Amino acid sequence: MTTYTAINLIARPKGGPIGPELFEIVHKDMPSVSEGKFLIKQTHMSLDPAMFGWMSPDTESYIPPVALGTVMRSSGIGKVVESNHPGFQVGDRVTGLLGWQEYILTNGQGLHKVQAPLPEETILSIFALPGLTATQGLFAIGKPKAGETLVVSGAAGSVGSIVGQLAKAEGLTVVGVVGSDEKADWIINELGFDGAINYKTDDLATKLAELTPKGIDIYFENTGGPIQQHVFARMNTHGRIAVCGMIADYPKAEPDLGPNWIPMIKKRLTVQGFAMPDHFGDIPQLLEKLTPYVMQGKIKHRTHILQGLESAITGLNLFFTGGNKGKLIVKL
Amino acid sequence: MTTYTAINLIARPKGGPIGPELFEIVHKDMPSVSEGKFLIKQTHMSLDPAMFGWMSPDTESYIPPVALGTVMRSSGIGKVVESNHPGFQVGDRVTGLLGWQEYILTNGQGLHKVQAPLPEETILSIFALPGLTATQGLFAIGKPKAGETLVVSGAAGSVGSIVGQLAKAEGLTVVGVVGSDEKADWIINELGFDGAINYKTDDLATKLAELTPKGIDIYFENTGGPIQQHVFARMNTHGRIAVCGMIADYPKAEPDLGPNWIPMIKKRLTVQGFAMPDHFGDIPQLLEKLTPYVMQGKIKHRTHILQGLESAITGLNLFFTGGNKGKLIVKL
Repeated sequence: MTTYTAINLIARPKGGPIGPELFEIVHKDMPSVSEGKFLIKQTHMSLDPAMFGWMSPDTESYIPPVALGTVMRSSGIGKVVESNHPGFQVGDRVTGLLGWQEYILTNGQGLHKVQAPLPEETILSIFALPGLTATQGLFAIGKPKAGETLVVSGAAGSVGSIVGQLAKAEGLTVVGVVGSDEKADWIINELGFDGAINYKTDDLATKLAELTPKGIDIYFENTGGPIQQHVFARMNTHGRIAVCGMIADYPKAEPDLGPNWIPMIKKRLTVQGFAMPDHFGDIPQLLEKLTPYVMQGKIKHRTHILQGLESAITGLNLFFTGGNKGKLIVKL
Repeated sequence: MTTYTAINLIARPKGGPIGPELFEIVHKDMPSVSEGKFLIKQTHMSLDPAMFGWMSPDTESYIPPVALGTVMRSSGIGKVVESNHPGFQVGDRVTGLLGWQEYILTNGQGLHKVQAPLPEETILSIFALPGLTATQGLFAIGKPKAGETLVVSGAAGSVGSIVGQLAKAEGLTVVGVVGSDEKADWIINELGFDGAINYKTDDLATKLAELTPKGIDIYFENTGGPIQQHVFARMNTHGRIAVCGMIADYPKAEPDLGPNWIPMIKKRLTVQGFAMPDHFGDIPQLLEKLTPYVMQGKIKHRTHILQGLESAITGLNLFFTGGNKGKLIVKL
């Protein structure tokens, strides 16, 4: 093999589904590995809702948008196949923002060596963006206390499923909002959630009232959409809302309005948006919180595997349709 | 005089202006002052937007609603005219939740003796609910830093005018939203605000952009209404929003929706509602923060005086029309 494949972003999404016209598939010559560098063969790429933000032209987002004509940004894991760098040996596993490409030549900056003897899928599902995001949002903003009630939207998703399991481990009552009966069944029977709402088929107000008789203390928002208004209306005094994702609204040219703020005062609510890049310095403490629960078997996950680099393009639309079952990972 | 007048709340507001049908004017026999009690003759009653919350049936609000058939709740100041209590002498000035009545027989619980040699109007305008609310919201939620930009709605109101002056004293750029050119003139030329927006006549987006070229770091929300969406859209990364009042929405049966939450994530905003009863324990620290600025002459105020107990009823509607010029006080 003398060339490898990469996918560049060449246009910004305008709302609506992600299509192939936004990308360009390119074949590049295999690079030579100069002094101080090493070459990674990526094995697994993570698809995350945060990528919609990275594709958008909004310069006010938490990290700069992907420049047009450059490789699409994504996190992933791979193996070192050639090294001229003292810190990385052939065979080492490395994780970080590897992008939509088969090979990466790097000096190692911003990348981490994977030490834990865990499968690639587990690392990308729990110890990468999803698990860190869940841990940061739940503990720093949600401030969970045993006996409280937490509702999480996108509950079968990569972040939401970990949020709910962490909250259960902390002694909370946990209700998840999902988009199919299969997902409802999974979060209740496999993950141990106390209840589930199928936002596509349930009467939201009725079902929510039934499942949260003592009101809601913490809302972990991954989706936006109509459920938001109903949850907001049932928040308890001094409730906390962590805003992590608004996937239901990203594809809309004109996003839906949010709830009126009168309850903010009446119930002295705190609503806080967050994004992991602000907290990369806290990763050691986050892992310290998360790892014991994983080791105790309290954090289960499932992965939805797509095959081949190019499957990433249409794969992104699974976030809008809710068609993914578990953490989306592209296997190269 | 063998009787005195009081006003009871007898019905809950249903949206729309406050009318006399919600109240009952009663005449009561002057009480005798038993052991451990004292009698206050109220001289000045404060009218505050918080009173709409106290009248509403919502049991989830921060203090219980006023029970129907009992005296309407309000803060005020008065003089002790008869005492059988060792801690209060005839002539002492006392402040607290005195209610809509000419005389109050009390054991002193929840009331404070006024020590400062200041006029009653100044005490009710700065050292009572408005000043404490402004100080709590600005410092605990707004976390102002010199050089930042603050926008406050209801900027000529009792809370907003103090928020803006405190922020100016802390070295911020301060823009106020008001409902008349007279108020705009007052906050700029008398209080030292950097700019003013008349929400009734200005093009909100254009004027706001012009006055906040570096975006907005802190929003102190006293009103709700259309300005909210425009301010929200101009918030800077890590911006803070203190939600103190939503007066524009209280009279509406169906309150307007709020902004979509996508910017919460993109800019990692914090939106926090608060109400003073949660912070009564912090009053000494709040006064410690507030008093030096008052003594340095940095906190000016003006009062809008209504005459006579019954003027309180229709006086409340001035909050909706913005017809009040300064802190609303009923002189008895």
